[in-house]
Amino acid sequence: MAQFLVKFLPDGLEAWVPDGSTLLAAAAAAHVAIDAPCGDRGICGKCRVQVDLPLPSSEGRGEGAGGAALEPPNLPERTLIPAEELTQGWRLACQARIAGHVTVRVPERALQPAVVPLSQVEPKPAVRKLHLRLPEPTLEDPAPDALRVRRALAQQIPGLQIDLPLLRRLPEMLPASHYDLTVATVGDRLVALESGDTSSRSYGLAVDLGTTSVVAILLELNGGRTLGVESRLNGQANYGADVISRITHATTQPDGLEQLQSAAVSTINSALDTLLKKTGIDREQVYEAVVVGNSCMNHLFLGINPDSLASAPYQPVVADPVSCRAAELGLAINPAGMVYTLPNIAGFVGSDTVAVILATAMHKAEPIRLAIDLGTNGEIVLGNRERLLTCSTAAGPAFEGARISSGMRATEGAIEMVWIDEGEVKVQVIGDVPAIGVCGSGLLDAVAQMRGSGVLNGGGRLLSAEKVDGVLPPRLVQRLVRNDGTDGFVLARRGRRPVVLTQGDIRELQLAKGAIRAGIFILLKEYGIQEGDITEILLAGAFGSYVNPASARAIGLVPPLPIDRITAVGNAAGQGAVMALLSTELREEASHIARSAEHVELSARTDFMEQFVEDLAL
Amino acid sequence: MAQFLVKFLPDGLEAWVPDGSTLLAAAAAAHVAIDAPCGDRGICGKCRVQVDLPLPSSEGRGEGAGGAALEPPNLPERTLIPAEELTQGWRLACQARIAGHVTVRVPERALQPAVVPLSQVEPKPAVRKLHLRLPEPTLEDPAPDALRVRRALAQQIPGLQIDLPLLRRLPEMLPASHYDLTVATVGDRLVALESGDTSSRSYGLAVDLGTTSVVAILLELNGGRTLGVESRLNGQANYGADVISRITHATTQPDGLEQLQSAAVSTINSALDTLLKKTGIDREQVYEAVVVGNSCMNHLFLGINPDSLASAPYQPVVADPVSCRAAELGLAINPAGMVYTLPNIAGFVGSDTVAVILATAMHKAEPIRLAIDLGTNGEIVLGNRERLLTCSTAAGPAFEGARISSGMRATEGAIEMVWIDEGEVKVQVIGDVPAIGVCGSGLLDAVAQMRGSGVLNGGGRLLSAEKVDGVLPPRLVQRLVRNDGTDGFVLARRGRRPVVLTQGDIRELQLAKGAIRAGIFILLKEYGIQEGDITEILLAGAFGSYVNPASARAIGLVPPLPIDRITAVGNAAGQGAVMALLSTELREEASHIARSAEHVELSARTDFMEQFVEDLAL
Repeated sequence: MAQFLVKFLPDGLEAWVPDGSTLLAAAAAAHVAIDAPCGDRGICGKCRVQVDLPLPSSEGRGEGAGGAALEPPNLPERTLIPAEELTQGWRLACQARIAGHVTVRVPERALQPAVVPLSQVEPKPAVRKLHLRLPEPTLEDPAPDALRVRRALAQQIPGLQIDLPLLRRLPEMLPASHYDLTVATVGDRLVALESGDTSSRSYGLAVDLGTTSVVAILLELNGGRTLGVESRLNGQANYGADVISRITHATTQPDGLEQLQSAAVSTINSALDTLLKKTGIDREQVYEAVVVGNSCMNHLFLGINPDSLASAPYQPVVADPVSCRAAELGLAINPAGMVYTLPNIAGFVGSDTVAVILATAMHKAEPIRLAIDLGTNGEIVLGNRERLLTCSTAAGPAFEGARISSGMRATEGAIEMVWIDEGEVKVQVIGDVPAIGVCGSGLLDAVAQMRGSGVLNGGGRLLSAEKVDGVLPPRLVQRLVRNDGTDGFVLARRGRRPVVLTQGDIRELQLAKGAIRAGIFILLKEYGIQEGDITEILLAGAFGSYVNPASARAIGLVPPLPIDRITAVGNAAGQGAVMALLSTELREEASHIARSAEHVELSARTDFMEQFVEDLAL
Repeated sequence: MAQFLVKFLPDGLEAWVPDGSTLLAAAAAAHVAIDAPCGDRGICGKCRVQVDLPLPSSEGRGEGAGGAALEPPNLPERTLIPAEELTQGWRLACQARIAGHVTVRVPERALQPAVVPLSQVEPKPAVRKLHLRLPEPTLEDPAPDALRVRRALAQQIPGLQIDLPLLRRLPEMLPASHYDLTVATVGDRLVALESGDTSSRSYGLAVDLGTTSVVAILLELNGGRTLGVESRLNGQANYGADVISRITHATTQPDGLEQLQSAAVSTINSALDTLLKKTGIDREQVYEAVVVGNSCMNHLFLGINPDSLASAPYQPVVADPVSCRAAELGLAINPAGMVYTLPNIAGFVGSDTVAVILATAMHKAEPIRLAIDLGTNGEIVLGNRERLLTCSTAAGPAFEGARISSGMRATEGAIEMVWIDEGEVKVQVIGDVPAIGVCGSGLLDAVAQMRGSGVLNGGGRLLSAEKVDGVLPPRLVQRLVRNDGTDGFVLARRGRRPVVLTQGDIRELQLAKGAIRAGIFILLKEYGIQEGDITEILLAGAFGSYVNPASARAIGLVPPLPIDRITAVGNAAGQGAVMALLSTELREEASHIARSAEHVELSARTDFMEQFVEDLAL
């Protein structure tokens, strides 16, 4: 097989690789560490690089373009990189395949991880497991069992706290184990007693509790490995789609608060059940959970009335971290285990935003970055280590596929990518099965591509088939349908029923987009900088797929920065929760972030509302 | 009215007092602080003094003996002071009434309190109440409610801990009180939020949880005043009379441990209910309970399996103080309030013994004292500030009136004092009503007096009426009865049915007495001293009345020391619990006591069993 030389600029590192290798594989061979957070899936856009050869053509698929150093861009590349940038040589390193000698310019941003990788987090969890061999009691040494445990841990945990439930277990456990046992502690608190040496089995749960999507991540705590990720629709959705309707339910319905608290916990428990089943891990050996969410989710999860968040002065009841026993909340880890909620910032800007900052290390970096956590509540962070501004906007659940006629979460059967090429609509479906619906990233792509192809006008209005007949390609025109007086656009036909985007769906996305973009406008204004001063835009979200940076830019969700400065980073809030679970030092850092980040309250601002209306246009 | 001069030796202080004043009143007038812990009731024997005039006669009652400086001894004096000591001029200062000029020698022991008086305890309770006026939230200052509370307490309680139940109360409480509220804290923990200024209302509960008797004492914590005392029969008695049968129940019956835990708490709750009703105090404003008991009671109260106490190496599960929320145990004070159990020493010697030591300050004094906590489990302490030895004996519930045919607790209708004078049986009944039964102190008196008057032989056998007819006074002989083949002695006839002591009752007391006395023997042996080296004997007990020191000496319950060196001190364990409730410094002292006191395990000793058999004789 032919071998080609690939050279990476600016460092000049080189490698010979076989024909058909990806640029990312070549970079690895040349010891150039390009960040590829989505794992070679071609959906985050982080690994964008620029090659020195202009492409002969952006057409043709799969077959190598004769004489070109790279095979032509595939669908993910053409979706993530607009045509203009493609002609300038921009490619996705994880997708572009080598067909000749080539020189590649790697932008600095592609080398710096957008999200702190777990491999850089030194595990210092609050959970510790220690194997003890205690002396058995004798008439000469009849010291109480509790004291034996305390003495054995005197060095490691001088102020050991043994709560009643654990005290009650001592008389059964110690003799049964012949005083050879392993203790689990969270901080100073004893949470478990296990027979024999089980010190290698230590687990924790990180939870991103979103208004619509809940993500639970099971971690092995000694080494800091992720064992599994499960997401669920927040069971609270039955009581209202957004935070305001949840607050209304909590404050006006008898037992409303209890219902919402219980629904949140049940959702997490359901995800946990699946994780335990898949991994075979013992529930009793999950000793701690770290939970992040916006302030309303945080309060509801803890069973604290969130009413004060809903009206001026938009005050949370609690912003500090809360630590309590799992049993107090009904969370189905070890009942004596602990739950730790990261701190909130202010208003609705909660611990999920703190987690996003922690995961992206915005609080430590010099360049000014803009991070957007896309969700039903959209949180926005702008700044750097000098100053961080935050705000929260009510985007609605469109990004999470909710309140969209064909909407669904990013699971098998969901259209996660859409590309309209010369009138042909191409979709990528999760699991490579016939499409059954569309998730947030697919919705964003679809609207961006529809706008680009002319079936949608700047006001977000679907044009009628009659109007565009003869103007647009026929195969595009025939996708414009009207059903029961509702205009729609057929995204896919292969499944049992066609997946159609309706005019209403497009309006939902417009509202979400307008809210986010107006929030960005206000933060830039408060910060006193221009859009162009932003070094990088990070698109985060817990909805399970990566938002296409090109589509986000195309519909105006984010300012029109060069495409290589916009990156999708996936569930940064979940990653922040994982980091806090793995490291008590990072919890301290999170508390520092919560105290120092500034909060801009949008609710009371007329300039926000004015901008929102302006930003509805696509 | 005539005035007489009373002079007190050794200090020579004097006072003129009216005819008929008690010596105790005269001492007060002369600024001589004679200790009278039973409150002038003539039952503890602590205020014994010696007058310089031999009495002309010990006969006659009530009327002044012509020419004598004091009226003749009344019933309490003649019960508490044996005839021989009476002729040497020993009197009870609280009972002896002045009828002429007199000089009184006050022994040093009468000046030193046997039990630390509450007036000497500086209140430094764990419970604090602080009135706060917080700034109301505004758009300029939307800090969370939890943070407002934390900031206001930053000086007084820097590490304030707000648990979930209290966090949940904030959003309701703070606005409703217009941010003018009082917080209650126990240590670092917030336990209550109350509208307005309620800082003057701060209450706590001290509990002596005995195997048979439970005493609950309600305290005002700011000033350290006792508001009420209630005692109950421990509801656990339904599951067995002594600790071994309770342990058997806990370990062999399904839910046995839970039943016993719940029975103990219900008993305390019942006493608390009455205390709250009598005082009108709000249950929510009782913020802490300090509980003492022997190790078995301590474990059962906490719901910890006490099985390891019952067999070698007689090991408690926990000896350290345990602190938990009242709700965890079901104790019906403020549910967010705290329960604190004083530390155990070892084996069955529990926190009640620590409390006795704390209350009698044996750990600080130079003279060697012997303290006996009479109860179903009898604990004995011997020593001084250099060294304290402790042990526990299974005395059975006789001292508490249980397992005695006419036995009852020391409540209205109980014979609490018995005196046989020239064949006439005189009884003092609590509440001055017809007798319905006999309590522990009455039982002890009765047996001592019966032995002294000849109806009982040294082996504890009741003589038959036939045998003593003509030998003893007829009115005594006619009290010896036989019913259904059981010998008995009629103590009182005035009530609806006569109160009769049976041969079996006397055997119960003998067993109790033998166990205590043999325990004393072992402790003296281990300490390496003789009976005569004991400076003072303290008779403590939670059964509600004071044991007559003379009777205790007469039946051989305690070594034959001069009567002025034996004092009944009432519920010293309860007093120790009160002291710990009032002062966190004294809790530290209690922990020091528990660590430094030595424990002598009697179960395994043959010398104890041999001595026990020897000590059964009266």
